[in-house]
Amino acid sequence: MSDQGAGPTSSLAPPPPSGPPPKMTNRGRSADPISSSNSDSTDMPEFEPFGVPGPRGFPPMTEFLDISSVDMMKGPDESNKKQHRTAMFNSDYLIVRRGQEFQVRISFNRPYKPATDTFAVEFVIGSSPQYSKGTYIPVFPTKERQSSWEGRVVDAADLTVTMGVTPAANCIVGKYHMYVAVKTPFGIRRTRWDKSQDLYVLFNPWGPDDAVFLDDESERQECVMTEMGIIYHGSYDDIAERNWNYGQFNYGVLDACLYIMDRSDMPITNRGDPMKVTRKASAMLNSRDDDGVLVGNWSGDYTYGVAPTSWTGSTDILLTYASSKMPVSFAQCWVYAAVFNTFLRCLGIPSRVVTNFFSAHDNDGNLKTDIILDESGRIDRVRTRDTIWNYHCWNECYMSRPDLPTGFGGWQVVDATPQETSDGMYRCGPASVQAIKHGHICFPFDAAFVFAEVNSDVVFYTRSKDGSLEPVKVNRTHVGRMVLTKTPGDVTRRDITDQYKFPEGSTEERTVLEKAEQYGCGRDKSDLPEADVDLVLPAMEISVGDDFELSLEFVNRSGERRTVDAYINGSVVYYTGVTSSEFLFSNPTVTIEPNKSEKGELVEVKSKRYMKSLVEQANLHFIATGKVKETGQIVTAMKVVTLHNPKLTVAVSNGGKVNEEMTATVEFTNPFTFSLEGVYIRMEGPGIMLPMSKYYSLIPGNSSLTWTEYFIPQRAGSSRLMASLDCPALRQVYGTAPVTIGDRSL
Amino acid sequence: MSDQGAGPTSSLAPPPPSGPPPKMTNRGRSADPISSSNSDSTDMPEFEPFGVPGPRGFPPMTEFLDISSVDMMKGPDESNKKQHRTAMFNSDYLIVRRGQEFQVRISFNRPYKPATDTFAVEFVIGSSPQYSKGTYIPVFPTKERQSSWEGRVVDAADLTVTMGVTPAANCIVGKYHMYVAVKTPFGIRRTRWDKSQDLYVLFNPWGPDDAVFLDDESERQECVMTEMGIIYHGSYDDIAERNWNYGQFNYGVLDACLYIMDRSDMPITNRGDPMKVTRKASAMLNSRDDDGVLVGNWSGDYTYGVAPTSWTGSTDILLTYASSKMPVSFAQCWVYAAVFNTFLRCLGIPSRVVTNFFSAHDNDGNLKTDIILDESGRIDRVRTRDTIWNYHCWNECYMSRPDLPTGFGGWQVVDATPQETSDGMYRCGPASVQAIKHGHICFPFDAAFVFAEVNSDVVFYTRSKDGSLEPVKVNRTHVGRMVLTKTPGDVTRRDITDQYKFPEGSTEERTVLEKAEQYGCGRDKSDLPEADVDLVLPAMEISVGDDFELSLEFVNRSGERRTVDAYINGSVVYYTGVTSSEFLFSNPTVTIEPNKSEKGELVEVKSKRYMKSLVEQANLHFIATGKVKETGQIVTAMKVVTLHNPKLTVAVSNGGKVNEEMTATVEFTNPFTFSLEGVYIRMEGPGIMLPMSKYYSLIPGNSSLTWTEYFIPQRAGSSRLMASLDCPALRQVYGTAPVTIGDRSL
Repeated sequence: MSDQGAGPTSSLAPPPPSGPPPKMTNRGRSADPISSSNSDSTDMPEFEPFGVPGPRGFPPMTEFLDISSVDMMKGPDESNKKQHRTAMFNSDYLIVRRGQEFQVRISFNRPYKPATDTFAVEFVIGSSPQYSKGTYIPVFPTKERQSSWEGRVVDAADLTVTMGVTPAANCIVGKYHMYVAVKTPFGIRRTRWDKSQDLYVLFNPWGPDDAVFLDDESERQECVMTEMGIIYHGSYDDIAERNWNYGQFNYGVLDACLYIMDRSDMPITNRGDPMKVTRKASAMLNSRDDDGVLVGNWSGDYTYGVAPTSWTGSTDILLTYASSKMPVSFAQCWVYAAVFNTFLRCLGIPSRVVTNFFSAHDNDGNLKTDIILDESGRIDRVRTRDTIWNYHCWNECYMSRPDLPTGFGGWQVVDATPQETSDGMYRCGPASVQAIKHGHICFPFDAAFVFAEVNSDVVFYTRSKDGSLEPVKVNRTHVGRMVLTKTPGDVTRRDITDQYKFPEGSTEERTVLEKAEQYGCGRDKSDLPEADVDLVLPAMEISVGDDFELSLEFVNRSGERRTVDAYINGSVVYYTGVTSSEFLFSNPTVTIEPNKSEKGELVEVKSKRYMKSLVEQANLHFIATGKVKETGQIVTAMKVVTLHNPKLTVAVSNGGKVNEEMTATVEFTNPFTFSLEGVYIRMEGPGIMLPMSKYYSLIPGNSSLTWTEYFIPQRAGSSRLMASLDCPALRQVYGTAPVTIGDRSL
Repeated sequence: MSDQGAGPTSSLAPPPPSGPPPKMTNRGRSADPISSSNSDSTDMPEFEPFGVPGPRGFPPMTEFLDISSVDMMKGPDESNKKQHRTAMFNSDYLIVRRGQEFQVRISFNRPYKPATDTFAVEFVIGSSPQYSKGTYIPVFPTKERQSSWEGRVVDAADLTVTMGVTPAANCIVGKYHMYVAVKTPFGIRRTRWDKSQDLYVLFNPWGPDDAVFLDDESERQECVMTEMGIIYHGSYDDIAERNWNYGQFNYGVLDACLYIMDRSDMPITNRGDPMKVTRKASAMLNSRDDDGVLVGNWSGDYTYGVAPTSWTGSTDILLTYASSKMPVSFAQCWVYAAVFNTFLRCLGIPSRVVTNFFSAHDNDGNLKTDIILDESGRIDRVRTRDTIWNYHCWNECYMSRPDLPTGFGGWQVVDATPQETSDGMYRCGPASVQAIKHGHICFPFDAAFVFAEVNSDVVFYTRSKDGSLEPVKVNRTHVGRMVLTKTPGDVTRRDITDQYKFPEGSTEERTVLEKAEQYGCGRDKSDLPEADVDLVLPAMEISVGDDFELSLEFVNRSGERRTVDAYINGSVVYYTGVTSSEFLFSNPTVTIEPNKSEKGELVEVKSKRYMKSLVEQANLHFIATGKVKETGQIVTAMKVVTLHNPKLTVAVSNGGKVNEEMTATVEFTNPFTFSLEGVYIRMEGPGIMLPMSKYYSLIPGNSSLTWTEYFIPQRAGSSRLMASLDCPALRQVYGTAPVTIGDRSL
């Protein structure tokens, strides 16, 4: 039958598929689909027969113990929420922290008899609950039978048993369904699922056995319980602040955080491990690859979304994502870090936002950032393509690192801002801060990237006419100039640079850099003679719209006269260091006597020169370069000036009390002669006001506006009202007012 | 103007977007788009003026050196291809290995005068060439001016210069455009891009400075130059082989491999680093996330593609992917590993396919695989959800590891088969084999996963009626039973288990497991009393369709009589260990005298019982469990039997010579009484035959077929013709024939 029924002989490949390629199926691959959604569930049967009925089937069950009701004891004044520090959550459910006992009250049809009655409280999470995976947990009230969660009878009176349940300190974090099961001779009888009895279990920084245990109450109060945040930006010598409402306790935020993990198909069984949760979340906070929470945009054009500078808190973003199920537009680094911070604090992982000034970026873990000069020493902007971000924000979260040698637990860097050149890695961390400081860049995860962000050298090259490059100067101190975070319990800033780096020039610093190089970091090894002339650009504090003068100082440290041909270049840049346009150029030649310093001619900078090309965050970047005539040495100086914006005035009515109406007033005067168009004002405050926004199509030049809004505070204590004003022509105008709320008057 | 022009006050969120969310743009984010395609390019200008023309513009250039032609010296008999070991590539271009000199011949309009003429050969890759990124490389012919690639004049005669060029040993791997540039007083004059002068640069295992340097000629010959492969499968005590034509030198395969990297948006600048190339490729070989090369399918239903068992080589798959730009259907682990192997060998990274017998899978780096028994000791198939793959294939590739401490370079595991529970990680490795052996599971990348695949314990639990589980037996030797690869230069197998693990029971083994546990691997710590009765299932070699008898042996190592209630369970399983259906159950009770062994009653297995439910790869899985009456101890035994399939007979005509027609004949007899439907036969051979396939809609029971095909061998030497037959009812029927091809007769 050699050729019978044979089709044509083809030399290549299968028949072309019609339509998209078939998806991988699960059959034959694993026994069950991997459970990766906390909103999916499998209902437990109301009756599980043991398979040995009597001659006439199952008898009536009335003679056995039966459950009449279950009370989760979730009232605001009951002990569960207080002891678990979850009373601030605006939620209808019981929320507890793992590794710590909570209580439930079970009422039966008759008094419970420990000697003969057997019952269990069961917790179930995800769609294929399994005891050995920790997704099905029966909890027994007797010492004799214990599973991974401990149970005990706290109190038994009449028909009611108060049972204490302690979730394992490493259990899965998320939302569990609860059942009560009673054993009868014929099978197991179980309550029906009742949504109101659902239980949320969080990480527990107060629990000594928890991987996120943090043994410092002031840090815990700040990094888990505080909704009010300050995020630093600007320049290391002229620091600016953004207020932010993390809003982790707002209604719906916890569910939105669980939805983020569901959306990422993160297996339920991984959700008790803070390393896995934070790594996954660093990928999911950005929309790259996975339709995550936030769309990045650094273009200056935010027509189809909210400008990154306009947000005042995380609540809007998370609730919009959870309801629209679409990425939210737009974010830049501090928005990623702030929303990530909400996610972490909400789930109970201690976290804080940090800002690194002059952050090397997109350089794939190498320790070099290249600046190209032409033969005369002037910067070649076409060929200079690496950038140093004026600042970059990321998160630190606190956890043990059982996967690393001892000593590398504690604060870990995680970063949700998508990296461009990192080989498709749109996630970063957790990377141990200790490992970064000590140059252990091979430790997971992504320590090498963070190390480069704080330790890169800036290498200046001269490009000759035939295209070859020669390194002429290396600046080893520019990058990673300062790392800041908010002080716990205060509104001041805290310098944590020493947690990332040994002091510049110390022996330890050199050892660490050598170790990093050994582990594969590319580093510049040029041993260049140091120039004996320094250029110095002074610190400047300038407001948007001001004319000002730039003075460049030349310092001659040699014993001979020196002449410098200098190029001074002023550009408007994005905060990512990318040049938008050049507005200033000057080319002085300055002669400096031996061991003297000389101020060059003052360069006048007129606001009309930069105003028309200003981009968001109003950063001006000055680079001075030059060549010493006598020695041929190259000298350089760099300075970023962040122009100060006008402020919003925020005022709040006096004598605030919980649940009593108050007013907030925002005032703004357009300081310019031109009109501002398409203006959004936003306002919110932790525990006092949910996010509000108002749109003004036009604010004429030099005119003022006032917006008054009513609000009803929910919580007593001190808080802040935060407002922002944002439009294409003027971004990041902020205002804030402190608010103290008293307990409700009786 | 307080409310003039104000829109409505909304409490939540931005205006809803219309259509899909905007994509992140690059503007303001980085100075240039990241170059991530080797097929994109920027043409270099034919003239680059220095900007100082004479009074009447640029003068005629005729008086200066001019290039008349460039010869890449790429003939099969010229030295470039021979010395770079690239003569086997079926390609129209010059292909060289980095860190090693190749020569080009440049003809000028007049003799070259070294003292006054300045020219350079320039190589350019990707869309934004930059000297400092290694994507624009000028090469000068003089010692005085050298860039990262060295140049020298080998020979200068009349109008012709033969120039030697040595690409840097760490340069980017891929396809470069070449230009020759001449410096004139007015600017740089350059040849036009000529496609035929393109240059492919590969990794170089022969180059001592290359990260993939492998100092063993027989390994290099096997792991870079050999197209013929053998991949092991079946069971560790009854090993089967698959022949595979890697086909890395076939026409179009190199371009397909570069396309894979382009498709993944891998930055050009990362493509010189074998760690980054292999990690990226491990993600791109599977279609998850990124529309990579191969769609996985373990379902048994391959209607809309090619069954994984049907492929005979990589060529079809890679060329189909590159031309259709769609994932190719279907793959299972050995197909992923085989195509990955082609990719690696093609680019010059030494690599081999290895097979791990009893591979723990999908367990997220934990060291436990759970099997649940009911109270009587019988396996509970509903609750047993972990699986151990009968075998799993991955790749090892050879490279230095500058990111790790000394001693962890060499062979590295990479795995392109998508992992299910690995937290969305559809890539794996490179993980140092040395690190796996020594328990350094925190070393990047993914060492913990591979460690678990060879080191997991199998834990048996007994489940009581109220749902709680108790561990009753731990088997610490089942998983990672044997690791095999092909012997270099031979067709035999090589046991490399000792490269992954210290001997079972050794002190080193215990130390390594303890270290892994310290680094966070979950491990079972039950210290269970060992049962004094063993169950033994014998090794069996059985052909598809045979009836056979199963004998279970009971060994009593105690001094007392023992009685065992045993459950013998036979199932058809996928090679992933997933149960398809149960076909056998037996429940003997056996009494064994002190220190004796006893064979239980023989269990007859009739082919009609298993044939109807047989799934691909024809694996039968026997589990015997039982409880010792006197002690309550649990005893277990597991055995996988891979049924032997009929073979294809392959015959080749005698006296083969290069470029002379030959014939190949495939014969097959359907050994069954039923018809086989929808049958594909495939055939190919390294250097002798490109992939061919033939379709038979029906092969009646007990009938035979013969397929004869003509082919023209391309290369002299010994090779193999490999054929497969595949249809839904009978998979992985293979045949092979050795072929020796002589040089062409004159």
